[in-house]
Amino acid sequence: MKLEEFKNPSVLKNYSKDEMAELADDIRSFLIEKLSVTGGHLGPNLGVVELTLALHQLFDSPKDKFIWDVGHQAYVHKILTGRAGQFDQLRQYKGLCGFPKRNESEHDVWETGHSSTSLSAAMGMAVARDLKGTDENVVAIIGDGALTGGMALEALNHIGHEQKDLIVVLNDNEMSIAPNVGALHSVLGRLRTAGKYQKAKEELEQLIKKIPAFGGKLATTAERVKDSLKYLLVSGIFFEEMGFTYLGPVDGHDFDDLKENLSYAKKTKGPVLIHVLTKKGKGYEPAEKDEKGTWHGLGPYKIESGEVVKKPGPPSYSGVFAETLKKVAKEDKRIVAITAAMPGGTKLDVFAKEFPDRMIDVGIAEQHATTMAGGLATQGMKPVFAVYSTFLQRGYDQIVHDVCRQNLNVVFAIDRAGLVGADGETHQGVFDIAYLRHLPNMTILMPKDENELQHMIYTATQYDDGPIAVRYPRGNGYGIKMDETLKTLPIGKWETLSDGNDACILSFGTMLPVAEEAVEQLAKEGISVKLVNANSVKPLDEKLLHDLAKANMPVLTLEEACVQGGFGSAVLEFFHDHHYHNVEVNRMGIPDEFIEHGSVGQLLEEVGLTSAGVVEQLSTMLPRKQQRA
Amino acid sequence: MKLEEFKNPSVLKNYSKDEMAELADDIRSFLIEKLSVTGGHLGPNLGVVELTLALHQLFDSPKDKFIWDVGHQAYVHKILTGRAGQFDQLRQYKGLCGFPKRNESEHDVWETGHSSTSLSAAMGMAVARDLKGTDENVVAIIGDGALTGGMALEALNHIGHEQKDLIVVLNDNEMSIAPNVGALHSVLGRLRTAGKYQKAKEELEQLIKKIPAFGGKLATTAERVKDSLKYLLVSGIFFEEMGFTYLGPVDGHDFDDLKENLSYAKKTKGPVLIHVLTKKGKGYEPAEKDEKGTWHGLGPYKIESGEVVKKPGPPSYSGVFAETLKKVAKEDKRIVAITAAMPGGTKLDVFAKEFPDRMIDVGIAEQHATTMAGGLATQGMKPVFAVYSTFLQRGYDQIVHDVCRQNLNVVFAIDRAGLVGADGETHQGVFDIAYLRHLPNMTILMPKDENELQHMIYTATQYDDGPIAVRYPRGNGYGIKMDETLKTLPIGKWETLSDGNDACILSFGTMLPVAEEAVEQLAKEGISVKLVNANSVKPLDEKLLHDLAKANMPVLTLEEACVQGGFGSAVLEFFHDHHYHNVEVNRMGIPDEFIEHGSVGQLLEEVGLTSAGVVEQLSTMLPRKQQRA
Repeated sequence: MKLEEFKNPSVLKNYSKDEMAELADDIRSFLIEKLSVTGGHLGPNLGVVELTLALHQLFDSPKDKFIWDVGHQAYVHKILTGRAGQFDQLRQYKGLCGFPKRNESEHDVWETGHSSTSLSAAMGMAVARDLKGTDENVVAIIGDGALTGGMALEALNHIGHEQKDLIVVLNDNEMSIAPNVGALHSVLGRLRTAGKYQKAKEELEQLIKKIPAFGGKLATTAERVKDSLKYLLVSGIFFEEMGFTYLGPVDGHDFDDLKENLSYAKKTKGPVLIHVLTKKGKGYEPAEKDEKGTWHGLGPYKIESGEVVKKPGPPSYSGVFAETLKKVAKEDKRIVAITAAMPGGTKLDVFAKEFPDRMIDVGIAEQHATTMAGGLATQGMKPVFAVYSTFLQRGYDQIVHDVCRQNLNVVFAIDRAGLVGADGETHQGVFDIAYLRHLPNMTILMPKDENELQHMIYTATQYDDGPIAVRYPRGNGYGIKMDETLKTLPIGKWETLSDGNDACILSFGTMLPVAEEAVEQLAKEGISVKLVNANSVKPLDEKLLHDLAKANMPVLTLEEACVQGGFGSAVLEFFHDHHYHNVEVNRMGIPDEFIEHGSVGQLLEEVGLTSAGVVEQLSTMLPRKQQRA
Repeated sequence: MKLEEFKNPSVLKNYSKDEMAELADDIRSFLIEKLSVTGGHLGPNLGVVELTLALHQLFDSPKDKFIWDVGHQAYVHKILTGRAGQFDQLRQYKGLCGFPKRNESEHDVWETGHSSTSLSAAMGMAVARDLKGTDENVVAIIGDGALTGGMALEALNHIGHEQKDLIVVLNDNEMSIAPNVGALHSVLGRLRTAGKYQKAKEELEQLIKKIPAFGGKLATTAERVKDSLKYLLVSGIFFEEMGFTYLGPVDGHDFDDLKENLSYAKKTKGPVLIHVLTKKGKGYEPAEKDEKGTWHGLGPYKIESGEVVKKPGPPSYSGVFAETLKKVAKEDKRIVAITAAMPGGTKLDVFAKEFPDRMIDVGIAEQHATTMAGGLATQGMKPVFAVYSTFLQRGYDQIVHDVCRQNLNVVFAIDRAGLVGADGETHQGVFDIAYLRHLPNMTILMPKDENELQHMIYTATQYDDGPIAVRYPRGNGYGIKMDETLKTLPIGKWETLSDGNDACILSFGTMLPVAEEAVEQLAKEGISVKLVNANSVKPLDEKLLHDLAKANMPVLTLEEACVQGGFGSAVLEFFHDHHYHNVEVNRMGIPDEFIEHGSVGQLLEEVGLTSAGVVEQLSTMLPRKQQRA
């Protein structure tokens, strides 16, 4: 059967082991080929081929519920549930989503993208099942990295307590995106390296029966000894302590082993954790050998050579950030860089090479990272937490309560701010202005280009009046000339790029090229537009705004962020707070909906954030006499 | 020495055990007496008297850092550091804060209020210490309930991995605010009930040396046996697995035991967890016997009888919420109530009595609660998460990513919305509108009184188009007549309470009495103000706003929430989005700063949210001819 013909995974019920192995091979070849063109999360999916096949053979989706943590490892599941034919459009505009998506298939029962949510969702489904009196199985598949996220631990704790029937498949590939961090990882490591315990268990059990001491002498500590025997006999002690039946370690590429343990889990009452060992990138040498995380998620590559197709281009914003921080840290001993499991994505790996003691990777733990940064700041250090806009959402309470409220000098380097493209709606960095702007003591900056970014990062490290966020987009800069010497920028002083009398565009961050094009076009029509690089949303440039209001010039605000509560709203609020009720203000930004995947250009087009859109909007705002025909 | 004379805790260095005991008695009497007048967190503080004394005797604050998790148990610490004289003004306007406060004392090195932050902060301080090369001790004091919060677990994991010198005092009183939930609690329970292990350890160690089997036969599993011996010998296996040296359990009211273990911890390299058993309310019978959490934090009481002084009054908003939900749940089997360790505060304990299977207390775990609610919703249930506004901040990413993005039918019953009074800045519920309003698919309502609340709760449970939040304030309703039959309210249709031509007040939630008073006063001066109960911030009542704009009536928005990005901003955005650029809009709400403790009335006065403030603001907005002299 061709993969494109798979509609329903129930056909797997009758597959022999050999047929399963053949199918696994086909799927691997398919993934390697398709993703070489589209790009995508190759490594994670090659790792779970057998596991996904075994799950679909032994359980009955969609009656039984599979919840894929993070979800970038659900490609095999997508293939088996009728979507192989759509892989040419993977992660492309209007094409197949790179994560589970409920409107794609009834087999996708939960959508993910951020890590560590699967256990909580599974618990909700298990509670619902028991209240409704139905009997489906609920299976969460979670990676070892995702397990360190606080909410996964909250869920483990709750599930262990409630003793609901629920299966957790711990997909342990020894690294999440970056090599894992944390004590839990050591626990897993010990389980992993100790091999199969079944034999050892039996040996020990026999042995202990022969020891007279354990029969008689220790009556007073009998209970304790009983517990100790449990410790002695059970290998997954950590999870057993949390109330789970621990099974494993299981070879995640061995169908027999998978089948045996998944079947056993299905029959077991109460929560079960199956510890499955898999190899990321399994079956494709370049991905198997990957140590830097290159093959976790990537763009197109050449299959034969394993060469990743790189478009030559200017340095990325992340790279400029990291290089700048390195420069500053040489002089400034207070600088400590922090990442939550994203050393590669944030380019802090570059920083860590030079300052290994001053880069802290806390694992997937944005809450802890934020508050730890606060702790560092109380001691006179200058913590710089580099984090994707969408992931910082998880530290919101800590930003409010621990950092802003105590007015601590923490720098937030907010990467992937704005639309991110192929990762889609779970990863768009469009809410950060709205969730940060209302926080007292917070400062929020965004540069127009990579040269301004380096000065802004420097400025942020020099700022000693409280928390400060510098947001910058995913991808490359423009390749403009970088100043050699870093300088501090005045905060709350915008940059007027061109003067004009008919209207004013306040452009925030990435929107500048769009604005420039619009201004140019309007100039040809004799309309003169003032263009401002509004590089600070909090504080605003009050002087400039007062001047604008007094000139009663129509104002258009532009931002690649949600328009409700965003930069434009800040401008609106300013005018009304200062009783300039007559200024015409129009705000352009991301509308009130979740934006799916596609190229950033396509998405901007979709929401109207283009020069044509700007020209159109501006045209309605000009004094009648100047309005275009 | 009188308590009021304590300035520096270093005097404790030379105290004998008897002197310490005497001091402990004095402190207890002091607390019982002072708090009987002011109210406050009596139970938690009576529980930590000896622990706090021992800490201050054995460590050197402020060089050594004490980080009090949650912080409501820091009264004894405040007494010992020069603040006994301020207890008459505890939690009162401009008086002593009920939580650690850095501007009160150099001994308060970290501010708290929300749970589970202390380990992360401590880790930050330990990292800073090691980078700076200093040698202070860092001690976090955390309760057993706070340990279930995800960020505390993230921190445990990271600290265990990094092996920094850091002491965690686990203050285990078997309950946080409500009895604890979770598997971790069972772990603690087993440790607790097993008594002292030191003896057992020694016995076992001797015994094992005599067993020949452990010397020879098991060479292949030698490592495993070594680990097993560790399990056999170490009682705090869970924490040991996490990389901590476990000490305890320690009698938290026994100075010798405390001293021995704290001294040992101080000498131990790497992270140490000392498990200290304390009794909440220790030394005051009514508080010791408390099972309902009454004595955790409370208002004034009569010392002799232990009778809590209750002002008779109308039912609380929380009570109305819970009673309504009970009513609805009788008919609607889909309803499942969720709380994160606040069954009493949210009044869901009332609901649980009737529907024990349909009320889930997840412990301090707002992230898990939010996403679990999402999981329930995917299966056709109707989860209602009752949560304080300030604590829901911790579920922000889950609201965005799991609930709103999937457009799931989750009801958020947001309690303690607005100013909360004595608990102060860490607990004010003033950000929720700003952090929810920009989220696609979200609906946000707030009633003007308790009767409207019951209909709103009913409406929310009947709403099947996505997430919906109903926010309501702390405290009692007005005692108005409650309708007998629940009805669904039209969402996005505001209620015009009185008509007028000169200006319009859009009042959101609790601000209505203030608005009414202002309207009445202005009416006496011949100024006619239209008054609207704007009970929905998302969606807005677009028809009403269109009409207002067309009439070009000045608009004043009123809300007990942060004014940046809040309800008023939504109104502003609406007018500009619809090109009504000439409408005069003024927004009144909580300014861009953190609001400290005090009575709600005092705080409203401070920020100008009074009828006089409204009259003043409105006066500036009237057409010249009508402006007051």
